Order: sequence, then C-alpha cells, then structure tokens
Amino acid sequence: MRVNSEDCRTIVDRGGDVEVIDQTRLPHQFLTLRLRSLADAANAIRNMVVRGAPLIGVTGAYGMALAMRESADDESIARASQLLEQTRPTAVDLRWSLERMSALLAALPRAQRAGAAYAEAGRIAEESVAMSSRIGEHGLALIEARRRADGPVNILTHCNAGWLAAVDWGTALAPVFKAHRAGIPLHVWVDETRPRNQGASLTAWELAMEGIAHTVIADNAGGHLMQHGRVDLCLVGSDRVTRSGDVCNKIGTYLKALAAKDNGVPFYAVMPSSTIDWRIRDGLREIPIEQRGEREVTHICGATESGAIETVRLTPAGSAAANFGFDVTPAHLITAIVTEAGICQASERELSALFPDRARAERAKAYG
Amino acid sequence: MRVNSEDCRTIVDRGGDVEVIDQTRLPHQFLTLRLRSLADAANAIRNMVVRGAPLIGVTGAYGMALAMRESADDESIARASQLLEQTRPTAVDLRWSLERMSALLAALPRAQRAGAAYAEAGRIAEESVAMSSRIGEHGLALIEARRRADGPVNILTHCNAGWLAAVDWGTALAPVFKAHRAGIPLHVWVDETRPRNQGASLTAWELAMEGIAHTVIADNAGGHLMQHGRVDLCLVGSDRVTRSGDVCNKIGTYLKALAAKDNGVPFYAVMPSSTIDWRIRDGLREIPIEQRGEREVTHICGATESGAIETVRLTPAGSAAANFGFDVTPAHLITAIVTEAGICQASERELSALFPDRARAERAKAYG
Repeated sequence: MRVNSEDCRTIVDRGGDVEVIDQTRLPHQFLTLRLRSLADAANAIRNMVVRGAPLIGVTGAYGMALAMRESADDESIARASQLLEQTRPTAVDLRWSLERMSALLAALPRAQRAGAAYAEAGRIAEESVAMSSRIGEHGLALIEARRRADGPVNILTHCNAGWLAAVDWGTALAPVFKAHRAGIPLHVWVDETRPRNQGASLTAWELAMEGIAHTVIADNAGGHLMQHGRVDLCLVGSDRVTRSGDVCNKIGTYLKALAAKDNGVPFYAVMPSSTIDWRIRDGLREIPIEQRGEREVTHICGATESGAIETVRLTPAGSAAANFGFDVTPAHLITAIVTEAGICQASERELSALFPDRARAERAKAYG
Repeated sequence: MRVNSEDCRTIVDRGGDVEVIDQTRLPHQFLTLRLRSLADAANAIRNMVVRGAPLIGVTGAYGMALAMRESADDESIARASQLLEQTRPTAVDLRWSLERMSALLAALPRAQRAGAAYAEAGRIAEESVAMSSRIGEHGLALIEARRRADGPVNILTHCNAGWLAAVDWGTALAPVFKAHRAGIPLHVWVDETRPRNQGASLTAWELAMEGIAHTVIADNAGGHLMQHGRVDLCLVGSDRVTRSGDVCNKIGTYLKALAAKDNGVPFYAVMPSSTIDWRIRDGLREIPIEQRGEREVTHICGATESGAIETVRLTPAGSAAANFGFDVTPAHLITAIVTEAGICQASERELSALFPDRARAERAKAYG
C-alpha cells in the first residue's frame, strides 16, 4: 500500500538482510530497520517492531532464513524455531510458518538450507499478499451490500489489521482498501486500541495515507455509536481462531462484539486460513493470552509540540497495572468469518467445509 | 478522605472564596485553586478542574453564591443559573442544585441573598457528604455479601466516582472505602477511562491514598477479566438516571454492563437521588450526550521521567477524532441501583417507591 504515494510492503528481503518498517515509531516517524540475524528477528517480534498475526508469521519465516545463514545444522533449525515461537504466545500464524519452514529445511542437505529458507520465506510472503488480496475481494462484497444512499458506509475497526499487520493489503482493512479503490464512499471509526494504541497510531496512519475518511475514537465509544445507528458493520482481524470459530483478537474485541450483537450490527472477523488453529475448539480455555509489561499501561509515548518523541507516565507512581494482550470472542457473537477462500459462519461445520484439506491434515498432525 | 494522611474535601468555603482541588493536575500534582467569581466557577466546571456529577452540583451552588457576591439582583440570579447550567449538559445534579438555589434566592430580599446563598451552598455540600456516607453503608452490604474465603473481593469500576467526584466519600467508591475501613479484603480493577483517564489518574490516586489494593487496566480489559471469573461485582457512578432506571455514565460504561450481563457478574449503579431525572424515561433518546473537543482524544498529558508535565500527540496530525463524554446503559443491564435511601431495581416502580415524594414533586414540576 501507499506511503507518501509510493507503494510499500512491511517486509522485504534485501539480499539476505531483511528490511522491516519500525512500527513502534509510527505515526510520528516512518523508519525502516535491517534485521541481520536470528536474534534481530526475534527481538523485532518480541518488541513489536513488527506485529500483526500474518506479519509475525512471515517475520518468523525470515528469522529461520537468517538463522540458516548463521548455521545450517539440525540443531540450529530446532533452536531457531523454538526461540522464535517463544517471542509471542497468542498468534498461531507464527507456529504455522515455523512448522512449515522446519519441515522443509530438515528434509534438505545442509548446504542447500540457507538458500531454500530465503526462497520459502519469500513464497510465504507472496502467498500472504495473495491471500490478503483475496480476503479483500470477499470482504468488499460485505461492504458493497451495506452501501447506502444517504452517506458513506460506516465501518468500525479495532486495533490494526491493515497492511502493517500483514505484508500488504492486510486482513480486516483489505476489504476497506478494495472498497475505497472501487469508489464506495466509506468512513471508518478507528478504535484507538489501548494500551498500545495500534488503532490511533497505525490504522489511522494507513487510512490517511490512502486518503480514506476516518475518525479516531476512544475504545469506550463504540457501544454508544452502535446504539445510535452510526456503525453499519464491524471488521476486526484475529490472532487465532479455533476450529469452532471462537475468535481471539486484540483485547477489547469481545466488548465490541457484545455491543454489535446488542444493536444488530454485523460483526465480521477477517483472517487468512493460517490464523485458524484446527487443533483446538474452546477459545476461552485453550488459547494462551499474552500478558505484557505494565509499563505499556502506565506510560504512553507520543509527539510533543516540537516534534520530539516523549514518553509520559499516566498513573500514580505506586499503582500497579495489568496488561492482557488479547481476549476471546465466542463464535456465537461473530456474524461471519472472512478468509481468502470465502465467507462462512463461525462454526466447525462451516470452517471445515471451507478448508477440508487443512482441517483434515492439521487434525491428523495433532492426533495422528 | 485522606490526602497524604490528612482529611480533605474537594470543595471548601474559605470565607467567600471557594477552594477546590485542581483535578486536572492529579495524580502528578496535588494543588488547590481559589474560585473568586461566577466566571471562575463556570470555568472550573467547563474545564473539568472539578468534575463528577455531585461535585458539579455543589460547585454550581457555590457559583450562585459567588454571583450573589458580585450582584444580587434578579437578573443576576437568572444569568448565573443559565451560565452555570450551560457548562456541562449531561449531569443533572447541576440543574437540580441551580433550581434549588434560584428558588431560594428569588424569594429573598436582595440584601439577604449573598449570605443565604453561601449558607445554602454549604447545606448542599453537607447533605452531599451525608448522602455519600449513607450510599457507602448501603453499598457496603453488597460487597460484604460477595466476601470470599480464597482472597479479596474483586471490584471493577469505571471512571472516577470516588470522593473527588463528590464532596467526600464519593458515590460508587463510597462502599469501597467503607468496606476497606470495615476490614473486608478488597482489590479494585480500575478502568483507566479514556479519553480523560479519570480512572488512571483520579481513582487510582484515591485508592492509593487510602491504601486499597488496586490494578489499573485498559478499558478494553474488563470483558476478558469477567470471562475468567476475576470480577466479583462492578460498581459505577452515574451522571443522570431516568425515572425508568436507564443509567447515563462515562462513555464505556455500557460496554462493561454488557460484559457483566454476559458473564453473570452483578452490575450496580451508585448515585445520590439528585442524579435521578424524574422528568424523563428513555435514556437513549432523552439524555443529551456531551461531545467534547477532539484534542482530548488526539493528545494526552502525563509526567515525564524528570517530573515535568508534558502533553503528547497520539494520532497522525491529519486524523480527525470524536469525543463522546457519556453513554447510556439500559435499565435491563443494571442489577440494582444504590442510593442514599437504599437499594432497588432499576425500574420506575421501584425507584418511585424508594423516593415517593421526589418522584411526585418533580413530575408535578414538569407537567404541572
């Protein structure tokens, strides 16, 4: 997508080093960063220089490639995969890409591993872009169906599931970008998404760069807007979906889904199939919820009047804080799930019907 | 309540000038401010130097007294009442106290008005303290009922409905202070309450000053905590309650009430009877929702490492923001309403039974 009118991706192979956008600096500064080692890749994921389930998956794949450049023996494959998987516990795309990379590399002679790893990571990235684009086309139909004569379609989104969360196009925002380019008048309510403010900093920035009308709101405001008919549909991404359709996503998603249900507003979860964890059924019991440092709640970073980036403390010095990264929205609150293969109900029956091979293979892996 | 171990109130008559705590500086600085004129009082309410429905009401009463000191003619009564009422549109306590002051003053000779105004404002303040204390006693029973053998009672609260929102004791936090002093082990989940962060800055500070265990959380986190059994009850204040029991409170309250209902967690709204607007029934249609400036969403204020107070911008420079101050929680999501007269269901029948005289008089005023 566009950054100052130039096409851009979140992650690019620069002849062995891997270039990413430093997302901790947005929206105030647009800077790229070179990952030169396995440790760099792990730190970039852990410190949320890169984030978003699909992009974490692709960065994990390139992390394996960087590891192979350092050492291509069997132990290095296992060590790199383990190190990378431990960086973030909730998103399942990372596990999916690490398993794919490990299986491929283990079957090759050592001398071929580094080259093959870069090629495979590149394929995963290209597949991600293609999936995002197809997701966008499917979701576009949902927006088109809500087109109205009296003004723009009002879409509410939580966190950032735009192209910054993927390689390009994004997940929940891919339909928004496609609809905008198709000429459908749109307006997006952007949840700021405390504590890390990915909505206020990343989603707002993406939409501004594409010229899409949007308004940033406190996370508290969505229910009020839905009560007053000011939201036509909700689009959110996901970090892990169970095979029964429970949707784990950024903390606060569940509250918006409750409000959508209470007010008859369609609530769509949008993700590539790599985000579906076929091995589990009960999202509330089986998905590990990452707890991050309390400083992300007690402090916040922004730009001062003079343009300097400054961190300020919000809470009394002695007060504790808790920082849960995600919550789980039960399947019955999800109107439908949008994937690269199409749209279906959030249920085991419909998800398995949409992805019969994947469902079968993953269950065989888990139980076989 | 206590500030650095000394008893303190939010508003005090200092021989004609009125001293208030500057709540925009907390939790980083504890400063008081003198209101010397009607204009000072109106600005203090408008700029949220003082806030919270009961305290706004008392400040309005003192604003009328300051106006009488300036000029005690009939026009001054009308002008002061109108100016003060327009400062904040949602809380109804302000209208209640201005009507009480205006009726009293209009019936007096001009020479007696200033003295009588200070005396009446003082009575309203004392009545507020007594009401908060009784509210605290009634609410204490609800906390006592949830006492558990395996740890503290976990209470979730939104915004600040503590003593800083009243004159002393508070509304939703009055039961918490009473329960703590009664020796019941407590832990409070404090919603930070974007965009103005009254939870993170005021509620956390009050609880710290009283030595009550608490944890600040993003507004997004409450649903997740309730899904996992980590909230025993919710206590929130209110800015206006309809006679049918719809509760208008700080934006985001409705989302927490939905989550409480979905997880079987009791959800109590706590307020003095001056917060009940007997003239209206349908909260969603009839309560005006204040919209404040977008800068409260796009910028935030906090303390730097060096202790300086600094404001930083959170959003991209070109992104719009919207700032709705309140939302309405329909009566069916409220487990019970707690007032100085006792506890009742959020329904017209039970509210009228608890306050038969007030209900009758206010309806007569509206329709008579």
